Amino acid sequence: MKNPAQDQLRVGVFGGSGYIGAELLRYLSAHPSVSISWVTAHSRAGRGIADVLPNLRGAVSGNFISQAEGEDGSSGVDVVFTALPHNESQDLVPKLVEANPELRLVDMAGDFRTNDPAGYEKYYGCEHTATDWLPRFVYGFTELQRDKLRGARLVANPGCFATGMLLALAPLAAAGRLQGDVCLLGLTGSSGSGNKPKQTTHHPERFSNVRSYKPLAHQHLLEVESFLGTISGEDFSLQFVPQSGPFVRGIFTTVFTPGVGAGELAKIYAEAYGAESLVEVIEGSPDLRWVQGSARSWVGVGGEGDNGVVFTVIDNLGKGAASQGVQNMNLMCGLDETEGLRAAGGFV
Amino acid sequence: MKNPAQDQLRVGVFGGSGYIGAELLRYLSAHPSVSISWVTAHSRAGRGIADVLPNLRGAVSGNFISQAEGEDGSSGVDVVFTALPHNESQDLVPKLVEANPELRLVDMAGDFRTNDPAGYEKYYGCEHTATDWLPRFVYGFTELQRDKLRGARLVANPGCFATGMLLALAPLAAAGRLQGDVCLLGLTGSSGSGNKPKQTTHHPERFSNVRSYKPLAHQHLLEVESFLGTISGEDFSLQFVPQSGPFVRGIFTTVFTPGVGAGELAKIYAEAYGAESLVEVIEGSPDLRWVQGSARSWVGVGGEGDNGVVFTVIDNLGKGAASQGVQNMNLMCGLDETEGLRAAGGFV
Amino acid sequence: MKNPAQDQLRVGVFGGSGYIGAELLRYLSAHPSVSISWVTAHSRAGRGIADVLPNLRGAVSGNFISQAEGEDGSSGVDVVFTALPHNESQDLVPKLVEANPELRLVDMAGDFRTNDPAGYEKYYGCEHTATDWLPRFVYGFTELQRDKLRGARLVANPGCFATGMLLALAPLAAAGRLQGDVCLLGLTGSSGSGNKPKQTTHHPERFSNVRSYKPLAHQHLLEVESFLGTISGEDFSLQFVPQSGPFVRGIFTTVFTPGVGAGELAKIYAEAYGAESLVEVIEGSPDLRWVQGSARSWVGVGGEGDNGVVFTVIDNLGKGAASQGVQNMNLMCGLDETEGLRAAGGFV
Amino acid sequence: MKNPAQDQLRVGVFGGSGYIGAELLRYLSAHPSVSISWVTAHSRAGRGIADVLPNLRGAVSGNFISQAEGEDGSSGVDVVFTALPHNESQDLVPKLVEANPELRLVDMAGDFRTNDPAGYEKYYGCEHTATDWLPRFVYGFTELQRDKLRGARLVANPGCFATGMLLALAPLAAAGRLQGDVCLLGLTGSSGSGNKPKQTTHHPERFSNVRSYKPLAHQHLLEVESFLGTISGEDFSLQFVPQSGPFVRGIFTTVFTPGVGAGELAKIYAEAYGAESLVEVIEGSPDLRWVQGSARSWVGVGGEGDNGVVFTVIDNLGKGAASQGVQNMNLMCGLDETEGLRAAGGFV
Repeated sequence: MKNPAQDQLRVGVFGGSGYIGAELLRYLSAHPSVSISWVTAHSRAGRGIADVLPNLRGAVSGNFISQAEGEDGSSGVDVVFTALPHNESQDLVPKLVEANPELRLVDMAGDFRTNDPAGYEKYYGCEHTATDWLPRFVYGFTELQRDKLRGARLVANPGCFATGMLLALAPLAAAGRLQGDVCLLGLTGSSGSGNKPKQTTHHPERFSNVRSYKPLAHQHLLEVESFLGTISGEDFSLQFVPQSGPFVRGIFTTVFTPGVGAGELAKIYAEAYGAESLVEVIEGSPDLRWVQGSARSWVGVGGEGDNGVVFTVIDNLGKGAASQGVQNMNLMCGLDETEGLRAAGGFV
Repeated sequence: MKNPAQDQLRVGVFGGSGYIGAELLRYLSAHPSVSISWVTAHSRAGRGIADVLPNLRGAVSGNFISQAEGEDGSSGVDVVFTALPHNESQDLVPKLVEANPELRLVDMAGDFRTNDPAGYEKYYGCEHTATDWLPRFVYGFTELQRDKLRGARLVANPGCFATGMLLALAPLAAAGRLQGDVCLLGLTGSSGSGNKPKQTTHHPERFSNVRSYKPLAHQHLLEVESFLGTISGEDFSLQFVPQSGPFVRGIFTTVFTPGVGAGELAKIYAEAYGAESLVEVIEGSPDLRWVQGSARSWVGVGGEGDNGVVFTVIDNLGKGAASQGVQNMNLMCGLDETEGLRAAGGFV
Repeated sequence: MKNPAQDQLRVGVFGGSGYIGAELLRYLSAHPSVSISWVTAHSRAGRGIADVLPNLRGAVSGNFISQAEGEDGSSGVDVVFTALPHNESQDLVPKLVEANPELRLVDMAGDFRTNDPAGYEKYYGCEHTATDWLPRFVYGFTELQRDKLRGARLVANPGCFATGMLLALAPLAAAGRLQGDVCLLGLTGSSGSGNKPKQTTHHPERFSNVRSYKPLAHQHLLEVESFLGTISGEDFSLQFVPQSGPFVRGIFTTVFTPGVGAGELAKIYAEAYGAESLVEVIEGSPDLRWVQGSARSWVGVGGEGDNGVVFTVIDNLGKGAASQGVQNMNLMCGLDETEGLRAAGGFV
Repeated sequence: MKNPAQDQLRVGVFGGSGYIGAELLRYLSAHPSVSISWVTAHSRAGRGIADVLPNLRGAVSGNFISQAEGEDGSSGVDVVFTALPHNESQDLVPKLVEANPELRLVDMAGDFRTNDPAGYEKYYGCEHTATDWLPRFVYGFTELQRDKLRGARLVANPGCFATGMLLALAPLAAAGRLQGDVCLLGLTGSSGSGNKPKQTTHHPERFSNVRSYKPLAHQHLLEVESFLGTISGEDFSLQFVPQSGPFVRGIFTTVFTPGVGAGELAKIYAEAYGAESLVEVIEGSPDLRWVQGSARSWVGVGGEGDNGVVFTVIDNLGKGAASQGVQNMNLMCGLDETEGLRAAGGFV
């Protein structure tokens, strides 16, 4: 890998061969203030990064290293991203930070998103073994956490469904308009399942299919309810249904707001996001296509009379993972928040 | 076209070159008790049916005829399907039936689905010109209208979204469990837009896209609310959001039932559909794929505690149009209800 | 399973849970002269067939049985299909036929398609252990083998790519117009890879992808060259490139015929297939879509001046596997060749 | 639009709302040495660029202007791209250049790609009206025309299929290995048809389809044969078949090279492209996916013994249009050839 320029951040990535890690590398390689120092990959250590990820040819050089090498290498970087499977970060992160107290770290997994070990165990199926680290993390839903993220050392990057939901729900909560049963649905692409082939992502069976899973029981409810609890004291119950669609990238989220009409919604989101660089608000439905490959999100509002609907579209690998991670890194390190994130995706 | 066997129904189809008409021809050509007498097509009159619809090569012979020829030919058939654009049936149907009082007719358009001319004008954008014919039609949601359909002469076939909704909603209404704001969402394939190319079905822009349209204002609400009103006197408000997905066939409908848990739902649908030949009930989510190319529908139920979710999957061109039309024809003519409708679609 | 009617063939299927087996069940369940006696599935034995293959709900009843049970059950059926992975049939078939000399058997694998054990070992990577059985099989490319198939007991069903190639090549060979380097390409859908998830059929990586594999070295060359050798004594060399496309069903084959123009091609194929019920010939390119879910094939011809191109489209699971198997079974058992095979696929 | 920095090129784009124009804007907006001065769009003049092309929100500001306004504005820019329908550039370009002799211009259409007006009329269906301008243009297949492109004022950007072909054919021609009938096939995505909906790009009919068109007669043969004629004096005949696949972006080209084996091919392409920044050479097949959204191309080689196959993959909107246009602009204007073109596309 190239030597960093004088003023560039040196960044290491744990877990660079998964889809989230690969997208992180895409954003980081185009970031003018970043130099990628090293990238680990469990089973690909020793192989050329751009051999495993041919899209990065010309953009990222060097080989994947092992996780042990990454742990050693953490002393030589300014920022670390951990893009590992759930339950692995809680082992690695304490070691890394204790050995390198100055390190800034963004965790892409579910391990540090709430201060609720019992909820973690319920939703992620294993006991949390680093509970004292939980309160040290800032939850990285950037637009509403900007003040806490500036200068933060440890950030838990939100989940993809959580991001799609919060874009709609957080401003509603702040406006005191989240009440009773809140029905919402998120339709996701297949990249959300990761790079390991399985039956539900087997092309012949996914190509033309739609199905739901974990209705009302998805693990991202944990962090969404926890974060909304910091905004609103009102009593509401999220009825969230995740679904799988026959496309690769993006999440289309729909939130029903009976009693809150399109006009009121337009005002709430204009106020919430009017000054944002990476969130657009429109009347009507956005197209999921508009955000694929991009760091940008859209919120659309519609409805009839007093009843409304909110739509959000994000790239699950972008705002739902890698680009929000970089956005948070920018804030943590005092850079312009949108640096490295302004490139447009294709129109088609 | 071949001469009908002694005991075969002679059937004519108006509008056979559209997607619904083409699917009707597919079902009718495989129906052992049906002989297709003629098929009209506005702009394709004179062309070979299997030249315009190559999938029907070997299954349907002859040429499309003009609408005028179809009107003349209606005296020589037992059953007519009208698969014309909305607003055209109300002109044609009275003429046909007055000239041929014995004719049995299934209208596939929105023209005769309710006895609510004002609602029709609101949702379909033009005044209804045959309002005295409205009460003569039976609404053909087969599973709940079987008694009225047996022997009926005039049937209004339900809309595709309406069918996906009613499969879930009608049993809830019958069970008195439809109350307050009922949030539901239908995700449809591109064939629902018909065979005329337009921007929202332009392949480069639809291939990987999801979007919503007419949120809370889709015209099928008219017939669904009207029909549910005949079942339940309760007060409820449907909050329906239609969406477009990147696939061709099928509608995946999701209904939120806070306060009605999965266990109760399972009982309601087992009772409603347990004896049905063409409707399956399962725990969890069905796959949309299971119904593509088939006359069969699935209802799935799930949830957490007292809160539930209902999923339905239909083929929008099958149960949402052509196969329900044939199912209704079978009842109207005293045939076995599932005749011609039992063929399975592919696993992939 | 239901009892067979007096005059129905009793059919057993080995390997009914794979994609080819599932499609066989779809065709057999709709075949008026067939009663499915039993179906084996290695890992699914004991499970309901229509639970594993929900598309068959209402069409096929009963549970999958084990292979051992199928071996026992072979004495009670008239016809057996073996739809097992390559290399397994050569163990099973001799046992079955020795125990049941009257049995008619269609093997869907590559094991018995040529009388060339050395070629088999080269292309399929293992020694053939039943070489004395090879000459007992008829190669089941129906349209050119009809005379041998009538009354045959043992039939080796052609491979999917082989079928797409032979539809174009066999008439050329018969016309003495296959010479020199013959360049051809077959683009296949993902169902050709079977139902086991792997990286090349992982939805995120296949959704929008095209790639080639085994260029000039695909194992179906073995049977194609062998079969063409029985037709033509000319010297030619097939340059075949298989490719994978982002769809599920079908193979689009393109054959270059420099020196043989469109006019001559049209005559060759009109003569070859003009009387065929399940093969259509047209000028220009067919659409792959026309054959998906159907037993029908299309051959198209085009070109400029003396240089031509031939296109063939087949459903890899239909004419490329299951429907050709049933077509062969019909001939073997003295039924109408197209019985159970006339149903049309959808227009979209 | 923003004011250009001191050292930025001022660029105007004619035809910015089509797919090629939109992709040009995507590349130009990310180009550090470019400032977009204005963009025309026939029917969208007056509308916000990022309203018509929402993917460009935050990347391109301002409104589309009319073509007349663009003609006036050409005096204030350094470079113009003309991304208009075929046959329109030949009217516009002479006017623009006569009025602004210093202007540098890249034409994206077919109008100025050869010095063969008769061929143009044959393939593009209309007489060429600016034949004296033809010899003034440099054909912009960058990798083989670099010397002529440096400092050129007028460049004709190659067609998308032509680029996919030439990547394989030009080095073969230079090596004297292009002889006899050269069979090749290009499979393209739907974006190649442009943004006007039509039947062949209607989603229900394209979703799962493959078809061919203009076999051996595609208009890009004109420029390919013309350009290869400048490299090789040998006698060969291109047998090119274009095909349409069910994806949006990219062209996968396959060239048969009987008599030229994989080893020799590997040497030819290593020599041709070993020093290239934007072309990769590998053994075996590339994945089309690797180039979608990127300026990079791949060449793969394979085969058996003395017979070979060459594969090329390009993004039809990238190297096949917009990114090659920018690559050429960089050379014309003395910039680093890859400036603005190094960003990676996604892995999925």
